[in-house]
Amino acid sequence: MSEIRIEPIGIVRGNPSDNQQVIEIYPEHSDGLHRIEELDELWVLFWLHKLGEANRRTYQVHPRGDGSRPLYGVFALHSPMRPNPIGMTRVKLIERRGNCLIVSGLDAVNGSPVIDIKGEPSC
Amino acid sequence: MSEIRIEPIGIVRGNPSDNQQVIEIYPEHSDGLHRIEELDELWVLFWLHKLGEANRRTYQVHPRGDGSRPLYGVFALHSPMRPNPIGMTRVKLIERRGNCLIVSGLDAVNGSPVIDIKGEPSC
Repeated sequence: MSEIRIEPIGIVRGNPSDNQQVIEIYPEHSDGLHRIEELDELWVLFWLHKLGEANRRTYQVHPRGDGSRPLYGVFALHSPMRPNPIGMTRVKLIERRGNCLIVSGLDAVNGSPVIDIKGEPSC
Repeated sequence: MSEIRIEPIGIVRGNPSDNQQVIEIYPEHSDGLHRIEELDELWVLFWLHKLGEANRRTYQVHPRGDGSRPLYGVFALHSPMRPNPIGMTRVKLIERRGNCLIVSGLDAVNGSPVIDIKGEPSC
């Protein structure tokens, strides 16, 4: 397998500077939201769509851009620089409204494609 | 953006039933491992390559296959069924040997393509 094809399941509306953001799930994937409103927290995987090809070929950076710290490989960090720029954030689920999830704590910019959401219902 | 292309950065050697597994990072991505040996734990994102198209169109399942529990949407679960079958596991990093990471706690089967690794160095 040389390449993997991923289809966005939704899109981020709003920016991290907002108090809340909306994850809009596309209608063809909305069956996957059944009972998600019972959960308090979710993992969100999204695509860092603003990054260019050069960012996908940057392999070593300073943690949090702090030049006083040594260079680390990107696989030792959560830096957005990496061959496959997937963001992974744990968010608080405030409310579900139909196909939309109102969340806080998401560090994805407006328009980011959402590629997966993972939760864990209590027993 | 209608489709996202992901390039595997490595491959899983060994099975979850083994005590340890090896993540082999392909040479062209090995610069991203710099100083990773300082870390004790890592997040590993991998592709569930054994799943077929039908699994990508299964939107509701019982948590952990337990039929006594109600159906949940796959986005409320960590189930392997989902439109983009990405596995996400926190593993213990036992040792780095060149391009190979010896880990425990990975629930990926032998041959799974690895698509990202994320760590967090201490301050």
